[in-house]
Amino acid sequence: MSEILINTKVLVKNDEIADSNRKILKDRGIFTINLMSSPGSGKTSIVEKTIELLKGKVNVAVIEGDVQTDLDTQRILKYGIPATQINTGRSCHLDARMIQHTLPWLFGQGEVDLMIIENVGNMVCPAGYDLGEDVKVAVMSVTEGDDKPLKYPALFSASQYLLINKIDLLAYTNFNMERARHNALTINPKLKIIVTSCTNGTGIKEWVESILKDKFL
Amino acid sequence: MSEILINTKVLVKNDEIADSNRKILKDRGIFTINLMSSPGSGKTSIVEKTIELLKGKVNVAVIEGDVQTDLDTQRILKYGIPATQINTGRSCHLDARMIQHTLPWLFGQGEVDLMIIENVGNMVCPAGYDLGEDVKVAVMSVTEGDDKPLKYPALFSASQYLLINKIDLLAYTNFNMERARHNALTINPKLKIIVTSCTNGTGIKEWVESILKDKFL
Repeated sequence: MSEILINTKVLVKNDEIADSNRKILKDRGIFTINLMSSPGSGKTSIVEKTIELLKGKVNVAVIEGDVQTDLDTQRILKYGIPATQINTGRSCHLDARMIQHTLPWLFGQGEVDLMIIENVGNMVCPAGYDLGEDVKVAVMSVTEGDDKPLKYPALFSASQYLLINKIDLLAYTNFNMERARHNALTINPKLKIIVTSCTNGTGIKEWVESILKDKFL
Repeated sequence: MSEILINTKVLVKNDEIADSNRKILKDRGIFTINLMSSPGSGKTSIVEKTIELLKGKVNVAVIEGDVQTDLDTQRILKYGIPATQINTGRSCHLDARMIQHTLPWLFGQGEVDLMIIENVGNMVCPAGYDLGEDVKVAVMSVTEGDDKPLKYPALFSASQYLLINKIDLLAYTNFNMERARHNALTINPKLKIIVTSCTNGTGIKEWVESILKDKFL
């Protein structure tokens, strides 16, 4: 059997499980976000800031995807939020089956309104794997360069949101915001772009309000 | 056939081709570097700075690996250096066969002493694929965080060098250099660590001298 044929079969199977996950989560009223980016773009910090803003208003649970370690889960658990780790080992992305296996844990955590899945830090692989989420969110930081949407188009075309993060570092880079927006919108004209910083708080409120609007509308 | 068995077979085949590449390159006196990192860690800038320092002394050729676009190759061609692009499409890494297919191009470029391969921006996949290089170099930038060696150990354990890049941005981050070194050396005690900046030139001379020493000793 050729590699391509196997890949297609894997993706078809993944999509079936993802659709099942989506139905189960929807039936329970759980809105799910899949956060994807390079390593070190600030995904975990965005999860932390989101939790801070929603605390006492919305019940959040977090799934942390990583090749190894539970460092990010430990960061989230400090907020008193249910969080669990999926270690993917040699795999460069989460898949729908991994999320399916995590659902029994999730349903044991009391009432959950919003589940945030932080994918493995990787701009290539995660984009191809539907997990059953409601919204896919790409994160890129200004220190990574404004050419990234052109170089890694799959992530940007699969996502509904783009958070351009670490805006506090803009002055120290040659990142061109106008060019970045243009590149991202060339790949995906429907992308909702929000500029953020977890250091000075820029855009976090706007981001959280957008997500809540998506959930409750 | 199971996915794992196929993966193992693919890797064995890859290693055979990589060994053949290495022999062919060695016979021609071409020293080869495989540069790996997240998207946006500054790999292409490091290639540019390396070319600048070696110009007129060492004949350099460059292979640029990207999912899409030839943006990086265009940057390198401006230096009057032979450079070619490998677009991997849906694949998240270069493999030995892609390099094998590029050798006829390389051997048509006149005398080449040093070949730099810039891998696809990805901290997970490239580490598992030997290309036939002499030296594997991991790059991480301080804006990515000091926990990366623990979270993506395969890259750091496979590499002989680690360039900690964008040191000019250190003051604006919470990156702890001592912790980063400790994390990296925990994963791979033999790692040669060089701190670099392509903006202010820190460490570039040291890096280039180390590579030349590796080549000519």
